[in-house]
Amino acid sequence: MTPLEQQGAAAKAASYVLASAGTERKNEALEAIAKVLTERKKEWLEANAQDLEAARTAGMRPAMLDRLTLTEGRIAGIVEGVRQVASLPDPIGRVDRMETRPNGLIIGRRRVPLGVIAIIYEARPNVTVDAAALCLKSGNTCILRGGKEAIRSNRKAAELMRAALAAAGLPGDCVSLVQDTSRETANELMHLDAYVDVLIPRGGAGLIRAVVKEAGVPVIRTGEGVCHVYIDDEADLDMGAQILFNAKCSRPSVCNAAECVLVHRDAAEGFFRKALPLLDRKGVELRADPAALEILGTRALPAQDSDWDAEYGDYILAVKLVDGLEEAVAFINRHGTGHSEAIITKNYFKAQRFLNEVDAAAVYVNASTRFTDGGEFGLGAEIGISTQKMHARGPMGLEELTSCKYVIYGEGQIR
Amino acid sequence: MTPLEQQGAAAKAASYVLASAGTERKNEALEAIAKVLTERKKEWLEANAQDLEAARTAGMRPAMLDRLTLTEGRIAGIVEGVRQVASLPDPIGRVDRMETRPNGLIIGRRRVPLGVIAIIYEARPNVTVDAAALCLKSGNTCILRGGKEAIRSNRKAAELMRAALAAAGLPGDCVSLVQDTSRETANELMHLDAYVDVLIPRGGAGLIRAVVKEAGVPVIRTGEGVCHVYIDDEADLDMGAQILFNAKCSRPSVCNAAECVLVHRDAAEGFFRKALPLLDRKGVELRADPAALEILGTRALPAQDSDWDAEYGDYILAVKLVDGLEEAVAFINRHGTGHSEAIITKNYFKAQRFLNEVDAAAVYVNASTRFTDGGEFGLGAEIGISTQKMHARGPMGLEELTSCKYVIYGEGQIR
Repeated sequence: MTPLEQQGAAAKAASYVLASAGTERKNEALEAIAKVLTERKKEWLEANAQDLEAARTAGMRPAMLDRLTLTEGRIAGIVEGVRQVASLPDPIGRVDRMETRPNGLIIGRRRVPLGVIAIIYEARPNVTVDAAALCLKSGNTCILRGGKEAIRSNRKAAELMRAALAAAGLPGDCVSLVQDTSRETANELMHLDAYVDVLIPRGGAGLIRAVVKEAGVPVIRTGEGVCHVYIDDEADLDMGAQILFNAKCSRPSVCNAAECVLVHRDAAEGFFRKALPLLDRKGVELRADPAALEILGTRALPAQDSDWDAEYGDYILAVKLVDGLEEAVAFINRHGTGHSEAIITKNYFKAQRFLNEVDAAAVYVNASTRFTDGGEFGLGAEIGISTQKMHARGPMGLEELTSCKYVIYGEGQIR
Repeated sequence: MTPLEQQGAAAKAASYVLASAGTERKNEALEAIAKVLTERKKEWLEANAQDLEAARTAGMRPAMLDRLTLTEGRIAGIVEGVRQVASLPDPIGRVDRMETRPNGLIIGRRRVPLGVIAIIYEARPNVTVDAAALCLKSGNTCILRGGKEAIRSNRKAAELMRAALAAAGLPGDCVSLVQDTSRETANELMHLDAYVDVLIPRGGAGLIRAVVKEAGVPVIRTGEGVCHVYIDDEADLDMGAQILFNAKCSRPSVCNAAECVLVHRDAAEGFFRKALPLLDRKGVELRADPAALEILGTRALPAQDSDWDAEYGDYILAVKLVDGLEEAVAFINRHGTGHSEAIITKNYFKAQRFLNEVDAAAVYVNASTRFTDGGEFGLGAEIGISTQKMHARGPMGLEELTSCKYVIYGEGQIR
């Protein structure tokens, strides 16, 4: 057995113990994790300081350095998140369908954990704890493979969490970190079918696509967001401008940010008059199709073909004029990633058609795409936003980390 | 574009039309299919006769010839199945969760089709119609790739169904058959990510494993069944013998048939006394571990290692003695395929432990594994039995062929 296979086997064995652990035990473990991360935060900060120093030496970009950085305040936020997960209802063990069949068999469908969840993510030490907490509460053991730049921070976090698990009477192997951050080991993890039930990549589009392409174990794609706002000719243009500004600029790096605005030809001039002063505040770069360019003039650059599929994650916005709802829907279904899409309109029938015909995880009428989020949707927390249709779609909370098992009570029935 | 890509694009385009079709329209199409298959059954039987002739010439085994064969009676059964699917409730469009958030956003989770479902199956012409009917009712278009031995039967069935769809006002491309039954085209279908949302292989373990290994599109594994019956020392041995006989012999070729019996050491002699006369009726071949061999003597052959993972699909049964529940559960979790597992016991606590600790789609106390079936579970019909944990587990009915979409009604909310 390779070291990773041993780790997989240990995670699988622990998963059978964790699957039978009650809610109280799991909540005790979460509280123990919150406590140890608070009490020993100095150790975690020291490990993080070493990561940061190495990253600076290696010339890491400021935005990435920021994501790698832990502070006392950020640790407090992470700990708060762990306690919040503890406070959420436990989905495991609920029987969501039970009936007595004509032959007397009593058949129930019970929520059970998925088993072992592998998570591949980038250099964000907060994900190490967030993901472990969600997996633990939903009865799943996890194998965490974070970015190599965060390895010292992640090792310390995993060490502290494993100690807390053991103190709470659960196997430390409920949470384990892949120690070797080489690409070969990541690839091995993607093919660890014998032990890994589901693989969830968290990170940028490049990471997600690489994992989907390579993985042999079942993957849940998350967080690819090429999101559109469609401004209809019957839109409230002030509302449209505010929503577009929010969708593009409130946090451009996240997956539910808008990347492209589609504007009805007849509304374009009036809309740009309202929207440009807002977009100017953040210096948003516009990349426009020829028709939009005629109106926007030097305020915009000509869009290239690749702009219609780009997830900028930045203050850049693709702009395209369309002839109406039908063209907008077709364009979105072709170029969107099935994440979040919005129409701005006062017209009831167009709103309904957009909701029906756009093929995405979340479809909005007169609201910002930025709301696609587990917290905003009332799920309490999320491990990611699924952009696939199988298993789960949209924000994935605890419920989405479960499977089911049919339990059947008989009295000697044969068929 | 290759012919298959064109077919995929057509199926995708049709899927947007079908997703918006109401229940009445879909039921009309199903009734039109039932009608045309009845009225033009002679054509279907003729095509089937050609397939059968070619198969006989090629030396096909009798069991496979039987599965390839259509008769007037079988067609009547298939047509009956189509009408039954029409009578089932439509899962599409139901909103299974809706709430108004504190900011006034109204967020609903609506059932939507998966999109385009590809189905790869063996030389069973009935699957062509069964699968198409289930996909149609659940709003999914399907691309069917049946075994090459059934190609003439399948072509005729697809032609008739497409004519019925068009007559009912739906695109014929809601149902399409892969015309070229080469292995290369099957492989191409497994990588048609741009158009296929889900791939469901239906057939023997060899087919399933090949598809899971090769496919780039998301796969739902179905129908691998290495199922066990565990006879506890506190079992009602008469009940145990009857259940084992039923689980092994009522239809050995299906995936919910038992392949292995685990017998508590202390119950073994008494149990075999009850069970052997039943198994003898069908001449069941026993392959036993050394401990069981001591009791069974020449009635059994020595089991090889490979017997513990074998899906015989035949009148063959692996037999192993165990020291108790714990060993039985560990053995099942190691060698089972996560399909259907049964314990025979009078002991309440052991029954509960078995239900909790065995990791399978369906776990039985004192009943035959043969009940794992969409009809028996009250789902009305099934497209297969999922042995994976992602998306769906156990019998997959219409509900399991859906995904969800969040629809959000706003009034200008920004975040």
